[in-house]
Amino acid sequence: MKCLAWIDGYVCDISEGQVPLEDRGYLFGDGVYEVIKIYNEKPFYLHPHLQRLQNSANAIDIEIPYSMEEIETEINGLIEKSECRGGYLYMQLTRGSAKRDHLLPEGTRPSMVMYVREFTSPASIEDIKPSSCITLPDERWMNCYIKSVNLLPNVLARHKAAEAGAEEAIFYRSGGIVTEGTRTNIFAVIDGVVRTHPESKLILSGITRMIALDILKKLDVTVSEAAFKLEDLENAAEVWTTSTGMEIAPVAKINGRPVSDTVPGPICKKLIEEFWKKVEAECYDGGKRRD
Amino acid sequence: MKCLAWIDGYVCDISEGQVPLEDRGYLFGDGVYEVIKIYNEKPFYLHPHLQRLQNSANAIDIEIPYSMEEIETEINGLIEKSECRGGYLYMQLTRGSAKRDHLLPEGTRPSMVMYVREFTSPASIEDIKPSSCITLPDERWMNCYIKSVNLLPNVLARHKAAEAGAEEAIFYRSGGIVTEGTRTNIFAVIDGVVRTHPESKLILSGITRMIALDILKKLDVTVSEAAFKLEDLENAAEVWTTSTGMEIAPVAKINGRPVSDTVPGPICKKLIEEFWKKVEAECYDGGKRRD
Repeated sequence: MKCLAWIDGYVCDISEGQVPLEDRGYLFGDGVYEVIKIYNEKPFYLHPHLQRLQNSANAIDIEIPYSMEEIETEINGLIEKSECRGGYLYMQLTRGSAKRDHLLPEGTRPSMVMYVREFTSPASIEDIKPSSCITLPDERWMNCYIKSVNLLPNVLARHKAAEAGAEEAIFYRSGGIVTEGTRTNIFAVIDGVVRTHPESKLILSGITRMIALDILKKLDVTVSEAAFKLEDLENAAEVWTTSTGMEIAPVAKINGRPVSDTVPGPICKKLIEEFWKKVEAECYDGGKRRD
Repeated sequence: MKCLAWIDGYVCDISEGQVPLEDRGYLFGDGVYEVIKIYNEKPFYLHPHLQRLQNSANAIDIEIPYSMEEIETEINGLIEKSECRGGYLYMQLTRGSAKRDHLLPEGTRPSMVMYVREFTSPASIEDIKPSSCITLPDERWMNCYIKSVNLLPNVLARHKAAEAGAEEAIFYRSGGIVTEGTRTNIFAVIDGVVRTHPESKLILSGITRMIALDILKKLDVTVSEAAFKLEDLENAAEVWTTSTGMEIAPVAKINGRPVSDTVPGPICKKLIEEFWKKVEAECYDGGKRRD
């Protein structure tokens, strides 16, 4: 496949893609983004992602300079040109390029860029490598529901996780309330109930989080969108993360301590299987996933 | 003058300056910056700014790819080429360009860009227009001492100020503790003592803040780097902001209420005069400031 970028309509190889020095995305992190998974040359759950992009843009007062129909056409066109069977599409909307000033510029056209990259999803449950996590105080701002590119705290926390030999950091706020990961939502099975932080300003409303909740409800698993604490996490029977890239990802260790003997646990395993069925229904006409 | 940009050694007009789409500054706000005032073609307090850039870079684990001597040479060269008599130099250091991943990339060379823009400083105290401020909860992250380009909360607060007809928003944390402005440090004269939030992780260690403290101490004004509250601000005899761009800037109104009858007040006025003497000593060989 070709890793192509689309920069306000201009298409080039991603390595040649450039943005203006005075783009407010670069100078202020004044922009929002989405990552959309591609299976079999098709974007997965495209409309919820575009709706969330619109929500993020509204939250920071950026007007999207294209209609949703135009964006959908451009996304599909770029995926087709890229010949991407399995991968993801990254899209970023910024307030555009203007002489640097904290004050919102007037008459500046916002800018949208996207690009496609290859990404291989696991072929089977056995191919999934359960992750290790650490826990860290959530020192981010108070509006984590906005999917903005102000991601430095997430980057630094991911780095701390790596230094501890882990793949993800789980954030907690005061009182030990678990919010989310650096790029994932967190689920835990506590006393037989699947728990995850409720939608609020403190977490991103993950698309995969929403899909997981839908599946669990259909499976008649007891789910509670109620915040839980670090001590609950320590006693959880199962823990997994959800994200567009890593889908449903079982957690084997937290702060070096094993979560349970069998990872993924029974609920997580069932959830992954049902998630893949959704992928097959939406992107493979109900046939088997393949690369 | 010419508004020139310097992008890792490549010099062009700022309007033609571009950075890679995959620069982590653009994708994550993974970078830090400085703004340095230029008076009479000379950078003011250059070394403290470069030291702070180094501190910010250290805090987020970015290695500056040039020596301080090289940077100083390039800054002076760019100012000279720009023929900038009065203005500022903006410089931004990012972790460089790499395939997008929260994890810090290995083997990626950080990137530095700078540009020069014109900016006119007030010629006399009478030319200064005192500002209006509003107060807002400080919803930013917990590491505001790092001068990073994760500035979306500051941009949004500046926008709220503008919507209220004000030029600046003053942030307060829980308990009403005043921290700083969106792009300024805050000083208030309370019961005859000049107060400003102490250096901590919650504020930027402003260069102009430091200069103001130095001047005040030499003037034998009683100064206390001790946090104060919103209610103290309401009863302050004088309030001003400090920043590289706006220097010492008197505040006339907070949330629509006048601070005092005379703005700038006597301490602020003396501070501005002494600040300009420092500018004249450093950049005009002791002669009068002029454009």
